[in-house]
Amino acid sequence: MMTIHSVAENALAAFQSYKKTSPVQRAAFLEAIGTELEAQREVLVNIAHQESNLPLARLNGELHRTINQAKLFANLLKEGSWVEATIDTEDLQRVPAKPDTRKMLVPIGPVVVFGASNFPFAFSTAGGDTVSALASGSTVIVKGHSAHAQTSSQVFTAVEKAILSTGMPSHTVQHLLGSGRTVGKELVTHPYVTGVGFTGSFSGGKSLVEYSQQRESPIPVFAEMSSINPVVLFPDTLEKNAAELAKNYAGSITLGAGQFCTNPGILLALQSDALNNFLSLLQGEITKVAPQKMLHTGIYDSYLGSLEKVLSKKGLQVVGKSATAANTGEAAALVASVSGEEFLSNPHFAEEVFGPYSLCVICKDRQQLADILRSLKGQLTTTIMATATDLQAYAELIELQQSLAGRIILNNVPTGVEVNASMVHGGPYPATTDARFTSVGSSAIKRWVRPLCLQNFTDAMLPDALKNGNPLNIWRTVNNGLTKDKIAFG
Amino acid sequence: MMTIHSVAENALAAFQSYKKTSPVQRAAFLEAIGTELEAQREVLVNIAHQESNLPLARLNGELHRTINQAKLFANLLKEGSWVEATIDTEDLQRVPAKPDTRKMLVPIGPVVVFGASNFPFAFSTAGGDTVSALASGSTVIVKGHSAHAQTSSQVFTAVEKAILSTGMPSHTVQHLLGSGRTVGKELVTHPYVTGVGFTGSFSGGKSLVEYSQQRESPIPVFAEMSSINPVVLFPDTLEKNAAELAKNYAGSITLGAGQFCTNPGILLALQSDALNNFLSLLQGEITKVAPQKMLHTGIYDSYLGSLEKVLSKKGLQVVGKSATAANTGEAAALVASVSGEEFLSNPHFAEEVFGPYSLCVICKDRQQLADILRSLKGQLTTTIMATATDLQAYAELIELQQSLAGRIILNNVPTGVEVNASMVHGGPYPATTDARFTSVGSSAIKRWVRPLCLQNFTDAMLPDALKNGNPLNIWRTVNNGLTKDKIAFG
Repeated sequence: MMTIHSVAENALAAFQSYKKTSPVQRAAFLEAIGTELEAQREVLVNIAHQESNLPLARLNGELHRTINQAKLFANLLKEGSWVEATIDTEDLQRVPAKPDTRKMLVPIGPVVVFGASNFPFAFSTAGGDTVSALASGSTVIVKGHSAHAQTSSQVFTAVEKAILSTGMPSHTVQHLLGSGRTVGKELVTHPYVTGVGFTGSFSGGKSLVEYSQQRESPIPVFAEMSSINPVVLFPDTLEKNAAELAKNYAGSITLGAGQFCTNPGILLALQSDALNNFLSLLQGEITKVAPQKMLHTGIYDSYLGSLEKVLSKKGLQVVGKSATAANTGEAAALVASVSGEEFLSNPHFAEEVFGPYSLCVICKDRQQLADILRSLKGQLTTTIMATATDLQAYAELIELQQSLAGRIILNNVPTGVEVNASMVHGGPYPATTDARFTSVGSSAIKRWVRPLCLQNFTDAMLPDALKNGNPLNIWRTVNNGLTKDKIAFG
Repeated sequence: MMTIHSVAENALAAFQSYKKTSPVQRAAFLEAIGTELEAQREVLVNIAHQESNLPLARLNGELHRTINQAKLFANLLKEGSWVEATIDTEDLQRVPAKPDTRKMLVPIGPVVVFGASNFPFAFSTAGGDTVSALASGSTVIVKGHSAHAQTSSQVFTAVEKAILSTGMPSHTVQHLLGSGRTVGKELVTHPYVTGVGFTGSFSGGKSLVEYSQQRESPIPVFAEMSSINPVVLFPDTLEKNAAELAKNYAGSITLGAGQFCTNPGILLALQSDALNNFLSLLQGEITKVAPQKMLHTGIYDSYLGSLEKVLSKKGLQVVGKSATAANTGEAAALVASVSGEEFLSNPHFAEEVFGPYSLCVICKDRQQLADILRSLKGQLTTTIMATATDLQAYAELIELQQSLAGRIILNNVPTGVEVNASMVHGGPYPATTDARFTSVGSSAIKRWVRPLCLQNFTDAMLPDALKNGNPLNIWRTVNNGLTKDKIAFG
């Protein structure tokens, strides 16, 4: 077994070559990863199914998404403007003379990616963190998640084939298994490591930040940690759309056994007959949901423990749960309710219960609903379920929601995260450690770069993105204007 | 005197209104700050001269720069594209249906700006940190530097006039004095504060990060701390341009009594007769430099202490110093030299000496020069002084320089920082706490924002930057292409 130090040395050595690859070369590499994953689809999906208990259809879909993520970054590289090339040309007549300065984003170096238990493909070995880092020109050390170690190793064979077939430096991606706490700490504190990507628990993410702060030079840690994704159900929509709401939310709460970061963990509403009607409809829907096998024993035990704790709290009432009894390892769906007053007096109710669970908070008036929104910590998402009448009547509450999360959703469920240029899968602490970045979508590449300014360089010394002739034909900001034009000197 | 809590409350209350101002309104506010500063030029420059000992010409220039910084951000707001509006329109035919998602940068909330002792105007009360935060829509609490408290208070009167004349919310900017350590800690740990800007010492910046980490929700701290800005003098240019190099570097080392973050603190070169000749020319130039009064007693004492410490080290030789004796409070210029071997064996030599001092490191060969470049910590700048012959002969050393700093300079001095779109005044730790951002130039606004994604919003609910009609006429990324076009449906 290699030491962490030799892994880090390999990653740094690979970075010295890999950072010099062209965007087109890296795009070909990412596409090859996609091709190799597709070629192994059946094997991969079957291993993942055995390890994670996730249904085959879901895993097929997730693999599809994973391949598309690699393609998204390949397309970003081929288009090329993401480097934010910015040029201010010289002015020798000015006193003092104005030098030529040119800026672009450059990769930071070897980064560590921790596989996530709830996404064996899309947020693990060849997942979003890995491909966004590879797109930037950074090299990657993957710490595979122990709950799907075989899947992770198998995915890595696909990545290795792509490295070979596209002539990338060996060790551009490396793969490790072992205890997250031990290997993780050694990796994050290693001086050659320059960044970290993580999706998991609050305690896990917090530890990684602490390790980084213990370094002589702290590094960025992008940890996506915990979120209860508050949904506000406004009165008029409850009145008019109760049945549809109950059906959609029962689906969203229990999707994938509730094992999504964007699972709607609390539903906020004003007390009313319409709300009572909605809750009884939701009860009916939840009853119909069959228990589902969870990802692994740790998550299952934690779900049971969290439920037991929350159900023992004063003021909590069960709205409905799966009618079918759950076998060991399976999570029964459960929706509960609590008064706004109880919710405000007990911070436990605002803690994430990872699984098919949601808590409806019944607020006595809009002031209490506002107080609750103000009391909530940072979230990945918050959702507004509202008619046009509601939007007008509750504008001040909707404004409060906008400072709460990275993504604000109107009349949709929060589960289902689009992988595109406008997505923000991130949000104020403790949803993530850094609200300024997203871990889903093409902007995720911005986590692995820093701006570099080159002053007074000759054209020959400049990287292609900054050369006068604009050989990459990218959008650049030249003397404060966006253009694809070459820079002409007269 | 107001409590820190009421100051923070005021800043948050102001933010609720200020964040709703239009870009054009904020541009007018920033321009008004510039106008008020200009109107008070004589008073301001005189007070600052008394407090900081900086020459009037320098202070007039610095005030000019400060006004231009405000204008730079006003222009950025008027152009408007900086918000990175990104839109992916819906596709209801897709299975599952693809929702409409739109993203832009939004301000984070009240931020704290610490005045810098070495820039009473440009990095203090109405300096770069303040105007970049105000441009973003964040409100600002300024902690004035005690070394120029009166200047800071006087500048604040100009800001207050601008608040009034442009109808901004009261408390959009607030101004405090008092002990940095005490007031600073209370401010940075206050739950309403969302970000921090600081330029100063390594220990000061490090404390601010520690305060942030003690919060329930840590916040971004942008501290620009310490840098020795290594300059590599390559052999051929030493051979051909020794006299010019000696003159320019004597000027850069002693500019403003060496009290610039970009002061060239070490000069690296290979041993040779050409280097010896350069050093004797540098000696001649340094001898001619008159001692200059430093900013305040603390900095003066620290300069004397640091010099005494470094001069007592084994292997250090004085190359030259100001011929005129220095009075109390004045800094004599001093250049020393040391062998590469001694430099590598004693980390003290790589520490910043804040003042008109530089250390020439005489390397025995290119391997040793490479080792030294690898041994250096993160820097704001590094400079390549080289002819075309040098550039070709020493490519691997120049590559090493590129991972060292935020700005790489060819054949210029590092002092003199352009305030423009392509500047990076930042760099790997410990030059700054966050190499991903700059504190100088228009990109400095990116420190005070986070991306927000709005999903499925109605056009009426969307902010102007994201509306279908593109009323601000800004560049936006729509379905992966950059355009100023409106979005047409149907």
